[in-house]
Amino acid sequence: MEQKKRTNPFRKYLGLKEFESRDDIFEVRIDIFPDLLNFSGNVHGGVIASLVDMSIGNAVHSNLNENQYSTTVELKLNYLKPLNGTEIIAKSYLLHKGKSLLVGKSDIFNDHGQLVATGTATFMILNKERES
Amino acid sequence: MEQKKRTNPFRKYLGLKEFESRDDIFEVRIDIFPDLLNFSGNVHGGVIASLVDMSIGNAVHSNLNENQYSTTVELKLNYLKPLNGTEIIAKSYLLHKGKSLLVGKSDIFNDHGQLVATGTATFMILNKERES
Amino acid sequence: MEQKKRTNPFRKYLGLKEFESRDDIFEVRIDIFPDLLNFSGNVHGGVIASLVDMSIGNAVHSNLNENQYSTTVELKLNYLKPLNGTEIIAKSYLLHKGKSLLVGKSDIFNDHGQLVATGTATFMILNKERES
Amino acid sequence: MEQKKRTNPFRKYLGLKEFESRDDIFEVRIDIFPDLLNFSGNVHGGVIASLVDMSIGNAVHSNLNENQYSTTVELKLNYLKPLNGTEIIAKSYLLHKGKSLLVGKSDIFNDHGQLVATGTATFMILNKERES
Repeated sequence: MEQKKRTNPFRKYLGLKEFESRDDIFEVRIDIFPDLLNFSGNVHGGVIASLVDMSIGNAVHSNLNENQYSTTVELKLNYLKPLNGTEIIAKSYLLHKGKSLLVGKSDIFNDHGQLVATGTATFMILNKERES
Repeated sequence: MEQKKRTNPFRKYLGLKEFESRDDIFEVRIDIFPDLLNFSGNVHGGVIASLVDMSIGNAVHSNLNENQYSTTVELKLNYLKPLNGTEIIAKSYLLHKGKSLLVGKSDIFNDHGQLVATGTATFMILNKERES
Repeated sequence: MEQKKRTNPFRKYLGLKEFESRDDIFEVRIDIFPDLLNFSGNVHGGVIASLVDMSIGNAVHSNLNENQYSTTVELKLNYLKPLNGTEIIAKSYLLHKGKSLLVGKSDIFNDHGQLVATGTATFMILNKERES
Repeated sequence: MEQKKRTNPFRKYLGLKEFESRDDIFEVRIDIFPDLLNFSGNVHGGVIASLVDMSIGNAVHSNLNENQYSTTVELKLNYLKPLNGTEIIAKSYLLHKGKSLLVGKSDIFNDHGQLVATGTATFMILNKERES
């Protein structure tokens, strides 16, 4: 079941669809459209990098309380094969939940279920400014 | 002077502007518009990752002959501070030019000239299929 | 059963023990000794990085023919918690087997079976010079 | 002038020599000895990874007060060419000095002054337990 979460302009611009997590695996999908392609007709690596960041971000967000927010500290991608077809699927989970840092992993699949890229990201937890 | 290069749908979707390289530094810019922001009102990390990939890609492309193309093998980003303002500037150059792999580095600046992120990427050179 | 493989001085210097792979998971271990520690008394991050490289290297090596060798192109580590105890265990496998590049993943465990670090590496396949 | 700093068993095991920083560039060197080599007779990638971590660690350490210590959170290496000769030189500096995270960059040179590898690392600042 598709789920509403934080609104976020760039997520919407890429057409991100978020789903309920199952067993602490956070899944997001994008229906591939022409603006997301590179000059070879495959999905641009920047889209995949964005998806890894967004998908691990969902896993991170589920661990924050209402006075916290997070920011990406570092992001690493390995691109394994060209990505084309109708859909991109990201499946992500947290490897580590520290007091100030959370580390997550994301696997990216094409619509045949093949692993096409993998990534990790570190997020830092920040506290919202208290309102007076 | 802004320069025309390879057309590429996702580059256009992000509004990438390419410039002539000077001294082997390849510079690209994006005018920030609302769709590129995250929920905090800063430029989304995925935009920055895309820009690193695109900008190093320009440096790589300038080293290929007409029978070659390239693909990103791996990409690494460190996000140093929130990015906002009117413009994103990427300055990139190659660290290594091998027979099959090229490695580049990209620094990302805000419109005050502050370093906000840094990245590296490895590209693999591939040969276009010969047409019969 | 411990297994003899390629001799390699730095592997020996760190005390690497190699084991037969099971189900394409390549496992190596190090018995922790005082020279491997940092100023805090934990295993130095450089030892863990070395182990990731060595362990993925075993997985890579098992895919080469007798005329090929390999070299590490890039290496990425996330350190999740301090590592101490009597032993370090690395479990690695390949994510991708390309014609020229192989990508592997390694998880590092302490002697309580806790994940303390994770890494990825890309190796390039090279051909040995033919002897005249 | 060679300088005494924090003692650290693994640094000593690799034969690390530390020098005074100049203009916030932190330099360390290792005299190559046979135990540091891989099966090809080049310096093992794990030695280079260790050196990047140690060298950026020096830059980090110079920014800490007496109640703080640091730990490596993530480490990324790009290996550009085989490293051999008599000496390895690392030159490192900080890209970012945050309240809780410090990010540094390290370039690795052979004894001909050629860039053979480059790396980045993120360190987290921790507070020492107060003594009662």
